[in-house]
Amino acid sequence: MLTIDINCDMGESSSLWDYSLEKDLSILPYISSVNLACGYHAGDPHVMHTMVEATMKAGIAIGAHPSFPDRDNFGRSNMDLPPERVYDIVLYQLGALNAFLQVNGASLHHVKPHGALYNLAAKDPVLAKAIADAVYDFDGSLILYGLSGSELIKTGRHDFLATCSEVFADRTYQNDGSLTPRAHPEALLKSQEAVVAQVLQMVQEQTVRSLSGNTVPVKAETICIHSDGAHAPEFAKAIHEALINAQIAVTSPVKI
Amino acid sequence: MLTIDINCDMGESSSLWDYSLEKDLSILPYISSVNLACGYHAGDPHVMHTMVEATMKAGIAIGAHPSFPDRDNFGRSNMDLPPERVYDIVLYQLGALNAFLQVNGASLHHVKPHGALYNLAAKDPVLAKAIADAVYDFDGSLILYGLSGSELIKTGRHDFLATCSEVFADRTYQNDGSLTPRAHPEALLKSQEAVVAQVLQMVQEQTVRSLSGNTVPVKAETICIHSDGAHAPEFAKAIHEALINAQIAVTSPVKI
Amino acid sequence: MLTIDINCDMGESSSLWDYSLEKDLSILPYISSVNLACGYHAGDPHVMHTMVEATMKAGIAIGAHPSFPDRDNFGRSNMDLPPERVYDIVLYQLGALNAFLQVNGASLHHVKPHGALYNLAAKDPVLAKAIADAVYDFDGSLILYGLSGSELIKTGRHDFLATCSEVFADRTYQNDGSLTPRAHPEALLKSQEAVVAQVLQMVQEQTVRSLSGNTVPVKAETICIHSDGAHAPEFAKAIHEALINAQIAVTSPVKI
Amino acid sequence: MLTIDINCDMGESSSLWDYSLEKDLSILPYISSVNLACGYHAGDPHVMHTMVEATMKAGIAIGAHPSFPDRDNFGRSNMDLPPERVYDIVLYQLGALNAFLQVNGASLHHVKPHGALYNLAAKDPVLAKAIADAVYDFDGSLILYGLSGSELIKTGRHDFLATCSEVFADRTYQNDGSLTPRAHPEALLKSQEAVVAQVLQMVQEQTVRSLSGNTVPVKAETICIHSDGAHAPEFAKAIHEALINAQIAVTSPVKI
Repeated sequence: MLTIDINCDMGESSSLWDYSLEKDLSILPYISSVNLACGYHAGDPHVMHTMVEATMKAGIAIGAHPSFPDRDNFGRSNMDLPPERVYDIVLYQLGALNAFLQVNGASLHHVKPHGALYNLAAKDPVLAKAIADAVYDFDGSLILYGLSGSELIKTGRHDFLATCSEVFADRTYQNDGSLTPRAHPEALLKSQEAVVAQVLQMVQEQTVRSLSGNTVPVKAETICIHSDGAHAPEFAKAIHEALINAQIAVTSPVKI
Repeated sequence: MLTIDINCDMGESSSLWDYSLEKDLSILPYISSVNLACGYHAGDPHVMHTMVEATMKAGIAIGAHPSFPDRDNFGRSNMDLPPERVYDIVLYQLGALNAFLQVNGASLHHVKPHGALYNLAAKDPVLAKAIADAVYDFDGSLILYGLSGSELIKTGRHDFLATCSEVFADRTYQNDGSLTPRAHPEALLKSQEAVVAQVLQMVQEQTVRSLSGNTVPVKAETICIHSDGAHAPEFAKAIHEALINAQIAVTSPVKI
Repeated sequence: MLTIDINCDMGESSSLWDYSLEKDLSILPYISSVNLACGYHAGDPHVMHTMVEATMKAGIAIGAHPSFPDRDNFGRSNMDLPPERVYDIVLYQLGALNAFLQVNGASLHHVKPHGALYNLAAKDPVLAKAIADAVYDFDGSLILYGLSGSELIKTGRHDFLATCSEVFADRTYQNDGSLTPRAHPEALLKSQEAVVAQVLQMVQEQTVRSLSGNTVPVKAETICIHSDGAHAPEFAKAIHEALINAQIAVTSPVKI
Repeated sequence: MLTIDINCDMGESSSLWDYSLEKDLSILPYISSVNLACGYHAGDPHVMHTMVEATMKAGIAIGAHPSFPDRDNFGRSNMDLPPERVYDIVLYQLGALNAFLQVNGASLHHVKPHGALYNLAAKDPVLAKAIADAVYDFDGSLILYGLSGSELIKTGRHDFLATCSEVFADRTYQNDGSLTPRAHPEALLKSQEAVVAQVLQMVQEQTVRSLSGNTVPVKAETICIHSDGAHAPEFAKAIHEALINAQIAVTSPVKI
């Protein structure tokens, strides 16, 4: 039986924005792993605690979603920090989030960098190595999530980490398998049908139809869905249903 | 043989203030335990990493020095947070700092709250319990450092935590055993002789001479010295020498 | 003809939470003055710029909404800062927000402290004076908004500032004219009818019906409505319509 | 008579680091203009207030020293923000600092970007324009300080701002007139004699001797000295004396 992981970034609000927490919770039934903000681009200890407990209860694998220290820009601004600082920043966030699992007798399942850190590490081997080293040194059994085909995935594997190649449910792709830049008017799939069709194709055929109509190979081990769009819960439900109907099990990768 | 712990708050600079790091390092030879800032009132991941490694090399016990989230006021402003938030805040900081020990094959030895959190927890049983619970849940073998005679020490013991009662080398005391408030003109001992004499009396006789001249009982299990005064390294050296000369071993409490 | 000001706190999101900006904008047609966050509890320069321009376009009076430096708790935690620091903190925020008016050829109309700063200044004359002094020194023609009957209003007047006494559309009141604490189950009026009735009574009769059923005098010069409830835009619209239907003009106090 | 401005970055501590404030104050007698941190990379409202008053008393021209929002890295990390956000960030900081001058009946004299913002604006015309526009819109009579020969100076002039070309007392130069990168072992002049000689040559001959021994033209309208080196006050005094002895007046550029 075919299996696939569905992951979603969560806990990216402050504890004052209760509405956002509710949105996160409403999506839990449709996913198998969650990436929790660690306070550097979003989130705070109370949100982290609340989300860890809600997610554990739902039986979903919990990963850290570390970021550059940049709340002002939600972690989306590129920062050119020396690799040893990036190592320290990632380590700090892994430890902070893991504490909330530890008091519940659990531990982290994976790590997926956020925003600018994710995008830069997809291309920059020095940055990728700083991240992978921090993950490995903290807990060598953690699974490193990264962009399919990225430098981060390559470096993680070289560092003896288990990795998980990520594709996106609602982003469009170029002929070389890269994501269409967000600034492009067609960067996002807007209809539920298109999103569901892309997910099924990526999981069943390990290909994607590029913007210009070509069939392009991708490695799809986890599918990222978003929690913040207007129709996020409906999209999540539709993707989940389509996968189940296609006899594809939604489940997180096993941490050894 | 009599023994005593000497502790010092460190890592309270940003990584840009190199001079401060050097000052911290120059005091290491004279102490047996260190309390490291965790980024909430001071410090950052790079300082934490640097200080953890330097302190481990020096064979000194490492504790966390968690604070209210208040860099603007160096953690010195009272904040009235609900106890469950204080629990979360302390837990976050313990996890973050412990990560830097974990990658070095070590773990935290103790926890000493900072600034306003320390002072409020000395009197407020609800706040004290929030802190003690976070410490216990994170690692029940951690030693809780707190003001001698405080609510925090009492609560920690009640929570089955090992505790360590703190006295101050250079602060003056009132007849009831409390510290003279900082605003008082004679809150601090300024001469090296007076500081050394007070330390010896506290360790050897478990008493202190109050500002008005009375002999007052104190429980002295650890002595706090400061790293930030103009003569901090000389004072530290003098205290250490006086203790050694008096056949008192300077050593941290054993974590079981 | 009777007149009343309706004010609303806005710009309390980060620029990434676009939905919140839209909610703010949807309420503009029903109010006469707005209090903009200045980056200390919420908001950022880009939100401030966007909200200043949208609000000016709508012809609404713009005030500053300064806070303790406490993004982690949305400015809702009491902090015990020395009055000279509170003066500096308020001044910093007035200057920062005013810059966005200045480049548009305008200037601030009023100041209303936020959260814990507002509540503490309602009772603490020292804190109230620190705030009033900062407002007066920055621009003596600014109008100081504060809780009706508060120390802040009294101090402001004594400092030769114009003041504006605030009442709340959806909060319930005690027999002594104070607000029912938020923790109380009946702290908030939940039905649109009750809110509208309370507003009309406060404006037309300068009284309010207390929780226990008494008629209590209040000074109502401005009515605070909220932008963050689920039905905020509908409530705002209903209040505005009820006032217009009662021949009451909704207009901000004149800055001299 | 030849004149030259000497500027120094100050107020880059938090109010808890009193030692740093003293160092700043000890350098005031030897300079003619100061650039004050605005809270984004360093400084806080209390430091800003203290430094504004001390500097006004000393009769020294006060400028703003705005930065990227990056306290964690002291404003030294490149951030790739959209130009409209940079405009907003600069405007916010100008307004905040100017408030402390306004309550003292004064106003800002100049603006000099800090750290990564300064370096990027030296080369990037889009970023330079965002900064220059914010400065001009806030107050068209402000003088824009920037690296001699930089894009920022060119853009400022094109924007009808008065500009002031900066050279460095203790940095070495390349044959093309650019600064030797900080990572280079000879990036800094270490002896007082070399620093004084370089300053005199730059002011008197508008040239500098490059690292490889060539004589290279520079435009020197203001000389930057540092307040944070171990011998900063002595170097400042020596430079000042050498200029006076050479009949060169140390004075800030006139704001029209």
